[in-house]
Formats: sequence, C-alpha cells, structure tokens
Amino acid sequence: MADFPTAEFETRMMSAQSAMAEAGMDAILLCTEAELRYFSGFRTQFWQSPTRPWFLVLPQCGDPIAVIPEIGADLMARTWVRDIRTWASPDPVDDGVSLLANVLSGFDKVGLPMGDEASLRMPLRDFARVQEKSGVEFVDCSDLIKAIRIIKSDAEIVILRDICSIGSAAFDRAADLFHAGQPLSESFRSFKIALLQAGADDVPYLVGAAGQGGYGDVISPPSGTPLAKGDILMLDTGATLRGYFCDFDRNFAINQCTDAAMQAYDTLWQATEVGLQNAKAGVTCAQLFKAMNGALGNAGSSVGRLGHGLGIQLTEYPSIAPFDHTVLQPGMVMTLEPSLSIEKGKMMVHEENILITEDAPVLLTKRAAPEMQVIG
Amino acid sequence: MADFPTAEFETRMMSAQSAMAEAGMDAILLCTEAELRYFSGFRTQFWQSPTRPWFLVLPQCGDPIAVIPEIGADLMARTWVRDIRTWASPDPVDDGVSLLANVLSGFDKVGLPMGDEASLRMPLRDFARVQEKSGVEFVDCSDLIKAIRIIKSDAEIVILRDICSIGSAAFDRAADLFHAGQPLSESFRSFKIALLQAGADDVPYLVGAAGQGGYGDVISPPSGTPLAKGDILMLDTGATLRGYFCDFDRNFAINQCTDAAMQAYDTLWQATEVGLQNAKAGVTCAQLFKAMNGALGNAGSSVGRLGHGLGIQLTEYPSIAPFDHTVLQPGMVMTLEPSLSIEKGKMMVHEENILITEDAPVLLTKRAAPEMQVIG
Repeated sequence: MADFPTAEFETRMMSAQSAMAEAGMDAILLCTEAELRYFSGFRTQFWQSPTRPWFLVLPQCGDPIAVIPEIGADLMARTWVRDIRTWASPDPVDDGVSLLANVLSGFDKVGLPMGDEASLRMPLRDFARVQEKSGVEFVDCSDLIKAIRIIKSDAEIVILRDICSIGSAAFDRAADLFHAGQPLSESFRSFKIALLQAGADDVPYLVGAAGQGGYGDVISPPSGTPLAKGDILMLDTGATLRGYFCDFDRNFAINQCTDAAMQAYDTLWQATEVGLQNAKAGVTCAQLFKAMNGALGNAGSSVGRLGHGLGIQLTEYPSIAPFDHTVLQPGMVMTLEPSLSIEKGKMMVHEENILITEDAPVLLTKRAAPEMQVIG
Repeated sequence: MADFPTAEFETRMMSAQSAMAEAGMDAILLCTEAELRYFSGFRTQFWQSPTRPWFLVLPQCGDPIAVIPEIGADLMARTWVRDIRTWASPDPVDDGVSLLANVLSGFDKVGLPMGDEASLRMPLRDFARVQEKSGVEFVDCSDLIKAIRIIKSDAEIVILRDICSIGSAAFDRAADLFHAGQPLSESFRSFKIALLQAGADDVPYLVGAAGQGGYGDVISPPSGTPLAKGDILMLDTGATLRGYFCDFDRNFAINQCTDAAMQAYDTLWQATEVGLQNAKAGVTCAQLFKAMNGALGNAGSSVGRLGHGLGIQLTEYPSIAPFDHTVLQPGMVMTLEPSLSIEKGKMMVHEENILITEDAPVLLTKRAAPEMQVIG
C-alpha cells in the first residue's frame, strides 16, 4: 500500500536530522502537501479541500510526529509514522493550534520553509497563535529541504521513469487522437483519457495551445476553437503516477507546416541536443543555461528559464537559469525546456525529462522526433 | 473564452469594494488560486508549479491590479483585468516583492485572508519583506471574501448544475464500469475516464474505498486490491467544469449486500432526506446539522460535519456543523454529507449537492437510489 518501503522514509528522515544538527535546528515544521508526503508517505487528494490544516514535525532527535485532523488518522496510520496526534477538525476556535503549539513547545529553534517556492498552508492568524503559544523561534529551512529532495532515490527514479514512459506512450497516439476540425477542448479531453489508458493515475496538469504557425502562451486551458490546417498544436502534460510527475510537451503540425515553424522546431530540437550534451554532474545550472541559450540564438528564452527540477511537484528546484549556480549531481531529475519566439504572439516550446548522471543524462521521455510530425 | 461575462466580475468587484468601504480597508491583497480566479477570471493549472507567486490587488476605489510573473501576461490579458504589472520570474533576489510593495504603498490598511481556510501562497520571508517595504497594515479579510463567494450567481449555478449532471451521468454507468475481480485502482481509472467522457474538464479529486460491508476511511487513493463479493464500493468525486467542482459520492454493493450495510445505507438515505427537508433559507447550519444528526441516531457523524459549501473549491464555507451559525440563503450551493459508523473500522458516507432556495432545495445531483445498488 505504501509508495515506498519504510527504509526509504528513514533515509529521508536521517538526512533531515543530520542537516538540522548542522544548522542548529531542534525540529522542522512542515504544513504543505509535497513536504508532508515526502517525509511521511501521506498521499491523498484531500488537500483539494482547504478546510483543514495538516502538520508534520520532524525533531532533530526521535521520530516524526503527525499533528493532523481526525479524518486523516486512518490513512496516516498506514504510513511509517507512528506518533499521530489528532483533533476534531474543523474547529473554528482552535483548529490544531494548541495541539501543534504543545508539540513544538519542547523545542527552541524550529525550521520552517519560508524561502523561494515555499507556501504557508495554514491561516496566517493561526501561525501567529502557534508562534505565541509555543514560544519557539522559527527559522527558514527551505535550503535544507531542497538539498534533500533535489536528489532522487532509485525508487523515486523508477516511478519518474514509468510516468515519463506513460506520457510518451500517450503522445505516440497523437496521429489517432488529434485531427483538423476537432475543438481544442476535445483534443485535451482525448489526451487526458489516453494518458489514463496508458497507465497514469491522474492528469493534474495539461496545458497547451494551437495557432497558425505557433501559439501565444503556454499555460492556458483549452478554448473550443477547432484545430485548423496549418495550426501548430502543443500539449504540455504533468501526468502523475503514485504522486510523481512527468512534465514534457510535444508539438504537432495539423495537415501542413510552414517553413518558419519547421525552422523553429529544428532550432529547439538542436538546443535540446545541446542540453543533453551538457547536462551532467559538475556542471552548474547557469552553465547549462548558457550552452542551451547559445543554441537558441536571438529568439531564445521568453519564460525566464530553460528547464527545472521534477518530482513530487510539476516543477521543483533548481532552475536552468543564469542566476542558479546549483551544481548538477547524479540523481537529479530535470526538464530541458527551450522556448523561442517565432514572431510577436507566436512562440514554440520543447521539453524533455532527464536523469543526471556522471556522464550523459538518461532520457526518461522518448525523444521528440527530429522533425515536426504533421498529423491531421 | 472567458468563463463569465465582464459584468459578472464587475459585480464581484463592486461587492468587495462596498464591503471594504464598510470595513475601512483601502485595498485587498489576494495570492491564492481560488481568490485570484474568482475576482479576475484567471484560470490555469499552472498553479501546480510552486515556483512563482501571483498577486491580485483590489483597491477600494478603482480597478483591480494584477501583479504577476511575465509568463502569465498573455492569459491575464484575456481576462477583464486591464492593469497588469509583470516581472521576470523566477527572480531569487526580488521575486515580485518590490513591484507588489510599490503597488501596495499607496494604501494604509490592506485586507488579506488570514483566517479559517486561508493560506499564504507566497514565501513567508517575502511576505515580511512586502510588509516592511510597503509599510501597510495587513488585516484579516477572510469573512469579507467568504460573504461574497458564499452566494453563487446564476452563471455559477449553471456551471455547478452541469458538473453535477456530468457526475451523475458517470455514476449511472456504474454497473458497466465496476465488477468483482477488478483492482480498485482500475475502478478508479475507469471512473475518471467515464467522467471525462461525460464532459468533465478534469478530475482533480477522486477518493474512495472498498471493503466487506463497509470501508475504513474516505480520503484514500485506491489500492490494487481486487473488488470482492460482499464489498461496499464507494467513490467520491470532485470533477470540474470550467473550474467548478461537484462533490458527491455513491455506494455500490459488489454481487451481494449484508443486512447491516443495507440498513446503514437506508439510515444515510433517510438522513439525507431530512437534510433536503430542512435545508432552506433562514435555517442555520447548526440547525441543519441537528436535524440530520438526529436522523443518524447514535452511529452518526465521524467526520465532524455533515456537509459544506461547494464552488470553485471542492469544499467551501460554511460547514454543516454544531459550531457554524451561518444562516442559509438562496444561492448557496452545498453538499449534504451524512456519515455513520457500522462497526469499528467500517463506515459509510452519502453525499448530494444542492442549491439553497426560499423553499425546498434544488437537487443538483441525481438523487442516489433509495436502496443500495448491487452490481458485479
């Protein structure tokens, strides 16, 4: 039933504990979906309900403590976490505040992710109450958590490889799924069904667009406009398996393709090749950006980065960007995501998912065709 | 392309502005998906990426101001929001902090949802920086936002009715979709596909369980265990249409059903009837809870509430609970969700979605069969 053996969670916990010791933190408080799941194995879509807060406390010494609403007790008891403290939530007077403050009050300095990419998934009012009642000093532990999560275990890599294969299998059906005259919303629906049929658990993320010779943005839900001859159709999917994401796209030309679009496709394909040649242990993200961006020429990079980490979340650190000097290490799973502008209002994006090794990266996705596929 | 006409957003904005004037707030700051979408119409699954923060400022006088990453400019420009200020995100040095602080510095007292059900979807470190740079005083505006969102417009009700119909149509196919010997994970997969085929845009929420004569919890992802004769299969779905949720479940007996399970089903069905008879304008949530809980007898309510609001989120305020004295009003969309314990580790839940009116509520879901359906 658990997504990983207990040993996997013990390893994650020990990594956190030794980092806490080094940073002088007595414990870490987590309240967000990805972080709770990473350290406890608690996986549920119930996070869709904003009503109840959920907490996991990782002490520097000892076992993790789940401080959660009663409704989650049964599911949490099936994880490796043994110390589970619950309250009857929702409780508008005290929604876990006293229970959490009581657990924390045994500590002085408590880490909480407060930096880049972090959220506080609890009412800010209640966070202030917990601070006051517990008397602890909260310090940022974003970097500490990042440094652990950024390296994927063998077991995580197996799942990530599998979901990328599932996504690739669904894209292989493109010529059957998409055709001229099909409303874009139906193209999306067909592709979601294809992903589920190929073995995905869920499709939390499917964005894309279609437009004559290129498209305007890359984060939109579909319109009802029918696909037309000469459209470039792009679908970018974050399908999941056991809570792990793939994140890659494919571009298809409907019936015909302009030379400009073919040329853009080729430039992006070659920039991805440069990424594949350069993405290896010891290289920094900034260096990788520079290499890929060079291959894009003047038209490159309208989205600020050319790839990112991948795992429990659709996007994770690091960023393949000029400002990110993270050194690539074996076990990182990344996207390579070059994009370029064809003309004003028309862009194109390519994306592949890779595993960093000491040598050439392992492609987790089935490499996009070297020339744009014309379907329809 | 927009989910609603501009007039709908203008009405929402005017409601917020008159409430701000009454509460003495100069502006409201929003940073969460549901709230940004409600007031701007900005709908994207890109929120799955935790990398970038997004902001919407509602001044007490004047037009809304979007303060967002450049990657969202194109999509935001297609909403009714005209004042769109962007920055190149991610930027680890200043990820929108200065831009937001600059917008806010024209105000003194700024509302921010900080109470029940609220989250802060930005780094806490950056929130502190915005506070310092802007010099504004932040005050809680949770209740103000709740009071607006709790009443659904006619246009919202149409979408909610449609997604409930879609969910009902998918459940009507249960006898074809589910059978003994089918791994629960495959039952889930079949049902997700059925929901998409019936017209759902997405299935962000599908939880459930199967067990002999009842099930242990109601928030789990599926196991791979095959459905067996005598199992009660429960599926609880939050499928979406244009970003609005249904949230209801159905129970099915596989091949045969014990008397105890039949009895539990009947008790829950009757408790829902009591809910339908009592849920009307002027009644408080606490009164509705009391009526439904009375119909459950001693076995009732293990999840702390017997229903909740429904809309942009899977669960919204209010709660059908003893502590919630919210008065029901026409235009509220609610779930009725009685649950009971059959024996230790075995429970059952029913759920329907309704629209509150001056008289009897309008059922948005197709009422569950009065007797448990036996399939197989």
